[in-house]
Amino acid sequence: MAVRTIDVRERVMARNDELAAQVRARLAAAGVPALNLVSSPGAGKTLLLERTLQALGAERRLAVITGDVQTQNDADRLARHTDRLVQAVVTHGACHLDACQILSALESIDLEATDLLFIENVGNLVCPANWDLGESAKVVLFSVTEGEDKPVKYPTMFQRAGVLVFTKLDLLPYVPFQLDRAVAFARQVNPALRILSTSSLARGGLDPWYGFVRAQARARAPA
Amino acid sequence: MAVRTIDVRERVMARNDELAAQVRARLAAAGVPALNLVSSPGAGKTLLLERTLQALGAERRLAVITGDVQTQNDADRLARHTDRLVQAVVTHGACHLDACQILSALESIDLEATDLLFIENVGNLVCPANWDLGESAKVVLFSVTEGEDKPVKYPTMFQRAGVLVFTKLDLLPYVPFQLDRAVAFARQVNPALRILSTSSLARGGLDPWYGFVRAQARARAPA
Repeated sequence: MAVRTIDVRERVMARNDELAAQVRARLAAAGVPALNLVSSPGAGKTLLLERTLQALGAERRLAVITGDVQTQNDADRLARHTDRLVQAVVTHGACHLDACQILSALESIDLEATDLLFIENVGNLVCPANWDLGESAKVVLFSVTEGEDKPVKYPTMFQRAGVLVFTKLDLLPYVPFQLDRAVAFARQVNPALRILSTSSLARGGLDPWYGFVRAQARARAPA
Repeated sequence: MAVRTIDVRERVMARNDELAAQVRARLAAAGVPALNLVSSPGAGKTLLLERTLQALGAERRLAVITGDVQTQNDADRLARHTDRLVQAVVTHGACHLDACQILSALESIDLEATDLLFIENVGNLVCPANWDLGESAKVVLFSVTEGEDKPVKYPTMFQRAGVLVFTKLDLLPYVPFQLDRAVAFARQVNPALRILSTSSLARGGLDPWYGFVRAQARARAPA
């Protein structure tokens, strides 16, 4: 059974990789970088994006594709902070976004008028690691309410991410989470990870994140 | 592509359901109930099991099968609290336990000397919902650090669970989580859910959970 599962998965993934290459080519042609936000459910992807849209929406043209298993709750939350279109993808049970969904969503986004695309993936530390969406980089969020050993328990995700954003730092006094231990685990599986620490709720540590987003976004052409 | 994915998945799942029926028959023959613990990564499955082994390990013969994508960290943590065998299953990238793994793990468990089997699934709110392991019931853990709308965003898991255990209640003063709102969302997708509230860290609310576990476990035959 194990072998059959793997054969099947490889066929489906090969098709996904072809579509991801098409996404990547389309974004490159338009000069739009894309950040794929991944994490456990409830680690704070949507709130970080809400803060980012509030802070940077006026100076950068940010587009968002947000995926959920059911509901458009996250899309509704995000739409309150931007007058731009927020693309909602409901996966109807599937545990990750795939490149086919991103390719479809791009049809509704004016890439020429976009400086950066955020993709908010389904909350899941396993499956989204293996599905290339054509993004420039994966950003993995890691809440301090989880265990410090998440990077070694879910290594693929942390290996494939370019950036690790610790979230909910305001809860650090109330949880038995040692940040230096978590950083060591993360560096163990991916020494090249760029690491940021944030609290979206307390609005702490967000400036380095905003700086990173600004540096990623293409400079807006003078009006 | 969507159709092909579904065809494939249905074939693999049909095979899983056959194996789950074998697990269920074997457990029924031995009179051993099995609870399948599912949740987001970091919601506290392992700590709840540690507390349960400490509190009930002397009066009930508890067996544990614990799954992780990589590492045996959880199995090592649990083994400190019991002199019984803790079965570790490393899924090597797969996002859920399957019935084939449970069937293999049962080979090493003396079911005649077991009153209750815990299965600690991979931390994931999506995929484990669809994989029957032959359990008596799914127990879904839901941390108050997550969003209240998790039940409507991941409805299958909450629909298929018999019990919902809120975790990390000690963090409630520090997070914008409204317990009654989360309960309402949970009841909306599954009115029959039994709901418990716990804090494993602060050792709060555990007696009702222990009572539930005691009631599930078969009564031990008099020595």
